[in-house]
Amino acid sequence: MKRIEVIQNILEANETIASRNQQLLDEHRISAVNIMSSPGAGKTSVILQTLAKLKGRLNVAVIEGDVASTIDAEKVQSEAKAVVQINTRNMPESCSLIAAMIDSALKAMSLDNIGLILIENVGNLICPSEFALGEHKRVVISSLPEGDDKPIKYPLIFVDADAVIINKMDLLPYVDFDIAAFRRSIIRLNPEAEIFEVSCKTGEGVERWCSWILEQVETNVVKRQKTGN
Amino acid sequence: MKRIEVIQNILEANETIASRNQQLLDEHRISAVNIMSSPGAGKTSVILQTLAKLKGRLNVAVIEGDVASTIDAEKVQSEAKAVVQINTRNMPESCSLIAAMIDSALKAMSLDNIGLILIENVGNLICPSEFALGEHKRVVISSLPEGDDKPIKYPLIFVDADAVIINKMDLLPYVDFDIAAFRRSIIRLNPEAEIFEVSCKTGEGVERWCSWILEQVETNVVKRQKTGN
Repeated sequence: MKRIEVIQNILEANETIASRNQQLLDEHRISAVNIMSSPGAGKTSVILQTLAKLKGRLNVAVIEGDVASTIDAEKVQSEAKAVVQINTRNMPESCSLIAAMIDSALKAMSLDNIGLILIENVGNLICPSEFALGEHKRVVISSLPEGDDKPIKYPLIFVDADAVIINKMDLLPYVDFDIAAFRRSIIRLNPEAEIFEVSCKTGEGVERWCSWILEQVETNVVKRQKTGN
Repeated sequence: MKRIEVIQNILEANETIASRNQQLLDEHRISAVNIMSSPGAGKTSVILQTLAKLKGRLNVAVIEGDVASTIDAEKVQSEAKAVVQINTRNMPESCSLIAAMIDSALKAMSLDNIGLILIENVGNLICPSEFALGEHKRVVISSLPEGDDKPIKYPLIFVDADAVIINKMDLLPYVDFDIAAFRRSIIRLNPEAEIFEVSCKTGEGVERWCSWILEQVETNVVKRQKTGN
């Protein structure tokens, strides 16, 4: 009983910090996207493609969450306006980014002249679904080699997603993946979610995905003008 | 501070139950293997191949850990001597099997005439490394499409592994994966770990992997005879 209370307290404290993060982002007219997936589904590749496509149209910063290593931060360094690395190995939560980590990251970077922050979460289909970070949109990447049953086996993360990217489309001839079945599973869990079929290797679908991202940023700008924020 | 204490208590309580599980298994002369990986790396496929290969040589039961769904349990049902499904969605830990769940599973099955229990953990490279289940051996599956950097990004789970399976070898021509670099990363973290290159699609490497499993079971039998257990 005591333990469940502690978990409840942690989640509530996280919500409070997440709201504060979003307020800070709104004050600086920044949109933030939380990108989640299994390890190796292609979060960094999607971010690299997005940075390349949005270059000259939007200033994009990246917050890189990893249990250990700075491999991903190094990969995006040259393409992003700013990069902050978070290693969760010795932190109280190691299996997901939490709002307090984003709070620290936002304090470690200049928020001027940034339009969008892409937050690469830790590779995990379970824990990140529980922790809001202050993001405006949540995106889940599912890659073909993982199999089309992931929404059935890890439903919660898909229920809360604004968009789902089906990545590694170039591997379709070599793996068993039923795209129609996968889409049906997503629609059953979350009929509002946008679905993008993408290959970071061939560039397939990247343009459509980036148009969606730009639309979200634009919608946020208009919303803030209306509310005077 | 209070929170870290609670986490410490949870891990200690888990160790106690894990030891009790192992004692129960030893009394019944059963070996148990904890199989861990990212979602979609091929735990169920490896288990299916193992069941097929060991048929007639060893009675194998399976404990299936999943956040939700019974898909995997249904797949292995006809091939295993016994199958118990654990769904973690509404349990205090949803991101990993814990020893208390295995305790329940062992109580739910007949332990007579079983030589080996394969425990399929929840798809996750982080949480399962923290929770002993009472298993005799720990195996991590890493699949080619996930990339060769997983040991660097999720080191802890590899440090404690007795064996690492590199799965989906059939996809080697279509993905960027440096096998030598992956092997070097494993050896750096854990020089004792056995490494198997496997394709569940072509059957490559399955024989060698199953010989290793049989050796572990045999070693356990001899050890128990010596200790009179």
